Amino acid sequence: MPRPGISGGRAEIGFELSIRVYFQDTDAGGVVYHGAYLDYLERARTEWLRGLGFDQRELTRRFGVLFIVRTLRIAYARPALLDDALTVTADIDRLGRAQVTLAQQVRRGAETLASAGVNLACVTSVGLRPSALPAPVYDALAADAEQEMTRHAAAVVSESG
Amino acid sequence: MPRPGISGGRAEIGFELSIRVYFQDTDAGGVVYHGAYLDYLERARTEWLRGLGFDQRELTRRFGVLFIVRTLRIAYARPALLDDALTVTADIDRLGRAQVTLAQQVRRGAETLASAGVNLACVTSVGLRPSALPAPVYDALAADAEQEMTRHAAAVVSESG
Amino acid sequence: MPRPGISGGRAEIGFELSIRVYFQDTDAGGVVYHGAYLDYLERARTEWLRGLGFDQRELTRRFGVLFIVRTLRIAYARPALLDDALTVTADIDRLGRAQVTLAQQVRRGAETLASAGVNLACVTSVGLRPSALPAPVYDALAADAEQEMTRHAAAVVSESG
Amino acid sequence: MPRPGISGGRAEIGFELSIRVYFQDTDAGGVVYHGAYLDYLERARTEWLRGLGFDQRELTRRFGVLFIVRTLRIAYARPALLDDALTVTADIDRLGRAQVTLAQQVRRGAETLASAGVNLACVTSVGLRPSALPAPVYDALAADAEQEMTRHAAAVVSESG
Repeated sequence: MPRPGISGGRAEIGFELSIRVYFQDTDAGGVVYHGAYLDYLERARTEWLRGLGFDQRELTRRFGVLFIVRTLRIAYARPALLDDALTVTADIDRLGRAQVTLAQQVRRGAETLASAGVNLACVTSVGLRPSALPAPVYDALAADAEQEMTRHAAAVVSESG
Repeated sequence: MPRPGISGGRAEIGFELSIRVYFQDTDAGGVVYHGAYLDYLERARTEWLRGLGFDQRELTRRFGVLFIVRTLRIAYARPALLDDALTVTADIDRLGRAQVTLAQQVRRGAETLASAGVNLACVTSVGLRPSALPAPVYDALAADAEQEMTRHAAAVVSESG
Repeated sequence: MPRPGISGGRAEIGFELSIRVYFQDTDAGGVVYHGAYLDYLERARTEWLRGLGFDQRELTRRFGVLFIVRTLRIAYARPALLDDALTVTADIDRLGRAQVTLAQQVRRGAETLASAGVNLACVTSVGLRPSALPAPVYDALAADAEQEMTRHAAAVVSESG
Repeated sequence: MPRPGISGGRAEIGFELSIRVYFQDTDAGGVVYHGAYLDYLERARTEWLRGLGFDQRELTRRFGVLFIVRTLRIAYARPALLDDALTVTADIDRLGRAQVTLAQQVRRGAETLASAGVNLACVTSVGLRPSALPAPVYDALAADAEQEMTRHAAAVVSESG
């Protein structure tokens, strides 16, 4: 878990997407298939990016780029179950000129079911060559990261108060 | 398309689920993978059933049954694309003692992208043997089918008026 | 089942792909998720086409076309289970200038678990507009359909003998 | 890459599963969807385990256990493409009494496309509580790990020779 101590206040500290668990997400073990979490994480990243003003098609059409996953690590703590109402978070952990690393969680109420770190590289949509983030995208992400730090600082103060 | 002529009034004529298209749903053809529509249809059926008071786990725990797909036919009219905001419908076409057939559509605004007919059988959750629908479920579905007919009749009158 | 009476001799009567069932294919009902069968069918169609000399990338690069699913119907007879060794068939049912319909089955040994009919349209890879099948593809499919009829006739004779 | 220097001799140094890339595995970026690699890895782990004498259903029926993924990290080096013929490896990295960590790679010929480390916990199939590996499973895995070390040592000698 990347940032312990602030789990009680998710609604105030960053992006969240609500996701429902369907049969299609589960496996014969009776729980959500471990690979399905990557789909949940991707949906949350996409909606987070859309919330900042950029959808995937626009990234390609306007800027000729897209984000690809370069590394991903995920720790599964508790299984998600059929019919569960989950929330999936996405917060910037590190922002570079041509890449961004997100900390993401899959949560059920106050429980963290899975925690992930996802490093995304910006690449050209034709040829998939490394590319700097387009300036408007970089600026929007930098502003989001700053807000995130402010929220985080406020949450830490609140926790310790 | 099971019920032509009423496509303009979806909001009034039955259940709808909003679904967003993500990279995970698309394929290298640049459009939504044909198999992903079955996932969309399943999500809509599940939410439709939940809206009638029954979630999947409750069906199993309270009644010892679940629904399985027995036959499915789908016609793809136009491709769905990355970032599309879709609506997926679910309406009862025929209701039997141990099965139900739904008419479902995947729509983008006023356009019908795909139309499906899905026959579901009620089976025991252990052993998957045919079972009558539990009475509360049957009654809820019968009431929903009746409302649907009323809406349909109203829509047809409105169309021809 | 499109062609009853010849199920005992699949090995002699057309294309078959072996597929193993993994956790990723199953759902919390304890059986293979109904949508996973579409993936199985697609793998078999792709290998059948490759066996005729055409892989998907070549269709696009050499001819500028691809096949898309236009309609699909599937009947589920018995559930496939984790670890099952399945065979998936693909046989031409009807061949047109710009489309082809396949009869496909998912089998476990002598049991038919699911039967499908899949209508594929040939479209331009850019724009997805209807296109005639490229002549070499049409010729290969026509030859395959003819062989299939011969096998079918032989099998029917053998059945009735 | 967990074990650099031995990439040239995969065929001699452990388990490999051949996997073909289909449309269902790709996304609108034109390459294999990053989540699909987890499916490839799971198929390879399952076949590796089957090769040691244990299929998933038997683990549950005979021993009342199953393996679940506890942590997974993956680095994507080069994209896999439609129609690619891949090999996926699975080698024991660490073996414990109630868990095992595998090093896995997705390869296309001599190229490593992705490298992963997957920690699996043995749990009861009912309740998903931690469980020691059944003795026959532990012994088979320990023997496999030992063979793997022998192969590894031989490969390192061969590399440096």
